[in-house]
Amino acid sequence: MTRLGLPDADAATVASLMAEADLQGSDGHGVSRLPQYARRIKAGGFNVRPDIKVVSDWPATALINGDNGMGHLVMKRAAELAIEKARTTGIAWVNSQYSNHAGPASLYASMPLKHDMIGLYFAVGNANHLPPWGGLDMLLSTNPIAAAIPAGEEQPIILDMATTVAAYGKVKSKALRGETMPEGWMIDRAGKPLTDPKRADEGMLLPLGGMEAGYKGYGLAMIIGLLAGTLGGAAMGRDVIDFNHDDDSVTNTGQAVAAINIAAFGDVGVFKASVDALVRDFRNSERIPGVERIFVPGERSQATRAARARDGIPIPDALMAGLNKVADDLGMTRLA
Amino acid sequence: MTRLGLPDADAATVASLMAEADLQGSDGHGVSRLPQYARRIKAGGFNVRPDIKVVSDWPATALINGDNGMGHLVMKRAAELAIEKARTTGIAWVNSQYSNHAGPASLYASMPLKHDMIGLYFAVGNANHLPPWGGLDMLLSTNPIAAAIPAGEEQPIILDMATTVAAYGKVKSKALRGETMPEGWMIDRAGKPLTDPKRADEGMLLPLGGMEAGYKGYGLAMIIGLLAGTLGGAAMGRDVIDFNHDDDSVTNTGQAVAAINIAAFGDVGVFKASVDALVRDFRNSERIPGVERIFVPGERSQATRAARARDGIPIPDALMAGLNKVADDLGMTRLA
Repeated sequence: MTRLGLPDADAATVASLMAEADLQGSDGHGVSRLPQYARRIKAGGFNVRPDIKVVSDWPATALINGDNGMGHLVMKRAAELAIEKARTTGIAWVNSQYSNHAGPASLYASMPLKHDMIGLYFAVGNANHLPPWGGLDMLLSTNPIAAAIPAGEEQPIILDMATTVAAYGKVKSKALRGETMPEGWMIDRAGKPLTDPKRADEGMLLPLGGMEAGYKGYGLAMIIGLLAGTLGGAAMGRDVIDFNHDDDSVTNTGQAVAAINIAAFGDVGVFKASVDALVRDFRNSERIPGVERIFVPGERSQATRAARARDGIPIPDALMAGLNKVADDLGMTRLA
Repeated sequence: MTRLGLPDADAATVASLMAEADLQGSDGHGVSRLPQYARRIKAGGFNVRPDIKVVSDWPATALINGDNGMGHLVMKRAAELAIEKARTTGIAWVNSQYSNHAGPASLYASMPLKHDMIGLYFAVGNANHLPPWGGLDMLLSTNPIAAAIPAGEEQPIILDMATTVAAYGKVKSKALRGETMPEGWMIDRAGKPLTDPKRADEGMLLPLGGMEAGYKGYGLAMIIGLLAGTLGGAAMGRDVIDFNHDDDSVTNTGQAVAAINIAAFGDVGVFKASVDALVRDFRNSERIPGVERIFVPGERSQATRAARARDGIPIPDALMAGLNKVADDLGMTRLA
């Protein structure tokens, strides 16, 4: 990152958030993005020395202009500002404009946790793969939502989900492995199930809810896009740049992060004990025959984080080759 | 409502919100609830003269204790308080405790609209029909989320959805009509699809996402329950009272309503024009063969509202009989 032109402190921030993504198992949002980021920086698609500014500032809200800097920098700043404001107001909500891809939603939703706050995060995705319900034009992205709730003795509850049935990365994985997709992930242009991932370009993702109730996922994706994009004057709908196929256009990515101060509603210890009790109630409740364990949102990611912090992060050969190519291009030592 | 003991002003508030629910087509949340409300009031399950109080008050948040009054009264007060605070703070979030069933979520999410604000609403449902993902104990309700976004010349965008594939009312309707449910609405205790609505008591609703991605709907239902219930010290999980089978226990229902002031993020006119453009883009985009029209969330409800405001609200015979029975019980004139 420094070799690509970022100031040392910014490079460290981006690198640590990318590593955090890999640690928690968000493999599609961690170091696997480095070759694309490097390509985009070289093409002039990211501003490596952005002047990230608060352009609107109210007691409990702000709008941050990211000046086309890397999204990690913009959203870390946004989350910190939300936390600071929520200390005295009870809740704060910060939108971004002229931001960029920032990695997994859960990173920013989780930042308020250690301040005894709940975090919420909404983002406009960086490629449209989803049409309106009943439509064929892909005007929506897989706009994710994340929420993080602190517990006491238990791990925090952390939800991080795309509003489509399957994320597009899962389709690509199926294609690589030569597998068929289950019905319900994608449809073709006639509205029929599409199960061959090699034909993904001919089809569209289905919104959460699938054939039966996909209008709900469509509604969620649209509302999240309005909150994270339109509200802050960022791209939404037709204006979204597909950054997988475009290295140099300014994406004007929008995200929103909120911090809710638990102390504004009552005793923090009582709240955390209630969350603990709920998690244990769920975990110890009766299971469907054959189900080994009931998980609460985020539990698997936190187990992955513990394992990878101990054992390291596995890097597939193809990714290692990609990272070494970045190193070669920048005249740096290869990783392995 | 006055005959049941509510003060005149409160009776008028509840009645007008119930009528509003019927107007917009939320038939399961309007006057059809009157027989149940009357039964519950007579059993002492609602406090008809509640002392609704703000028990925690921060610049951008509040917690309201509804003193077991009717939910409509509590949530109207909560929405008004959120709007008032958001005028100066940019966003406000108000939770309730000791509230009750308040009708459709969209009623309260929509209240900020005419103040050029976005509304959000979250509620803990009043009966648990949903187990944790992989589980059999019904520890979650169909916890709804609603969002309302103002437009300019277009109607506002209003999403109002349960976090299950199908609301429980839809299952009951299928049973009444002697129809089969599609696979994906419910499962039985072995985890197999349940399609006979007469056997609904043997099964569980599936969370949004169904068999394929129901862990997402489960996650949403849990997060909404934590935000709307646990955060405000209201019931969640095992503590939720099934108010369809219990007329006198205090439900300690929790809801949360937020108002986001668009002016805190930029020019309101520009925002509304962007929403208009987006709605038209979606509406005019290419459709799957056979699809007549692309809708945005809330469009059908608003068409129903216009039609019913003109033509009246249809009351099925069974409901009319139920309303007349309430009239008889209270020594009032029958409706028809």
